[in-house]
Amino acid sequence: MQSNISKRQLERYPMYLNHLFGLKESGEVMTSAPKIARALGLNVEQVRKDLQAISSKVGRPKFGREIDELISDLKSFLGYNSSSLAIVVGVGHLGQAFMNFKGFNNYGLDIVMGFDCNPDLFGKSINGKPIYNIDDMSAILARHNIKIAILTTPLEAAQEVSNLLINCGIKGIWNFTGAFIYATSGVVIEDMNLASSLAKFSHRLQLLKEKENC
Amino acid sequence: MQSNISKRQLERYPMYLNHLFGLKESGEVMTSAPKIARALGLNVEQVRKDLQAISSKVGRPKFGREIDELISDLKSFLGYNSSSLAIVVGVGHLGQAFMNFKGFNNYGLDIVMGFDCNPDLFGKSINGKPIYNIDDMSAILARHNIKIAILTTPLEAAQEVSNLLINCGIKGIWNFTGAFIYATSGVVIEDMNLASSLAKFSHRLQLLKEKENC
Repeated sequence: MQSNISKRQLERYPMYLNHLFGLKESGEVMTSAPKIARALGLNVEQVRKDLQAISSKVGRPKFGREIDELISDLKSFLGYNSSSLAIVVGVGHLGQAFMNFKGFNNYGLDIVMGFDCNPDLFGKSINGKPIYNIDDMSAILARHNIKIAILTTPLEAAQEVSNLLINCGIKGIWNFTGAFIYATSGVVIEDMNLASSLAKFSHRLQLLKEKENC
Repeated sequence: MQSNISKRQLERYPMYLNHLFGLKESGEVMTSAPKIARALGLNVEQVRKDLQAISSKVGRPKFGREIDELISDLKSFLGYNSSSLAIVVGVGHLGQAFMNFKGFNNYGLDIVMGFDCNPDLFGKSINGKPIYNIDDMSAILARHNIKIAILTTPLEAAQEVSNLLINCGIKGIWNFTGAFIYATSGVVIEDMNLASSLAKFSHRLQLLKEKENC
């Protein structure tokens, strides 16, 4: 696997994959770099380079590439071929949305259970996935091979819960809490900061308004 | 308003605000840059500089700053003082989570309605906010002063729906679809790309696994 993939490049792969899923669903069999570039509004040379970086095969002129093969290459590159078990920690509105979302399986994530500290939720389930008491997490995770957690607790609880998760053997935390999480090496924290994004959005809207009032 | 605020700096302001909301709730009245730095694990000089950039007042040695005043400065800087009306477009799991989330009011967003193309949803409401047929959007938005949309449609629909939103006078789109949206100048698109974040997360986990197997 190449590790010299740029961040922007890595961000394009899920777009290709999503686009190809759509083509496949509508019955298409073949596509090509120019077609993909046109559909997604990208530069054709960039698309060609991106696809070459993750696959040894090249498209045949006039025939292009098999969609199934491209999907398989992309899924393999992104690590979506073998599903990883995951838990949701913090079953509020956002945590519930994730437990309900059926699309994660296409992206290699298989959410199997949720944890919360609200007793009203214990024993309930969402989309067939049970919700447990966070106090029982160590005991429950000891019986499963789960390495990934989606963290949707309140910000204040993020670090403490992360420490607990890491003690339980979790290796990757997809962090939606807005907190900076400190972790030992050997643990991946991927931040998805809604409050920061909203702050940037709001700031840019203010600048726009001031510009228009000038 | 300063526009020479760095992206990283802008990302810290919501953290300060969240932290101060928490302090206020627990009955605190005063705080200081060193206390904030300690609580959030940040450098004290950085915190001091960040706070000075958005406020003319400085903390008094030994007394620090009034929390209410700091909250007010931060909300004013981030544009959260006056609430902006917003709509959710695409009332799936994520869109529903946003309509249910009560915290947006603290961040200057007041979601007032949702739009979808699923007839089962028309006439229903979530958290007191009605859901309308997206075909009626032009007519409905013409009667309201709404400038902000949270876009949670499927990726394939993102550009078409955005064109419609912009035609209806929407000036800011918070984009959760994963699509690159092309917009005329004078419209702010703030991307929040879950699929890209998941791809980066998955890629980093793969690299970690390979490193550990070496």
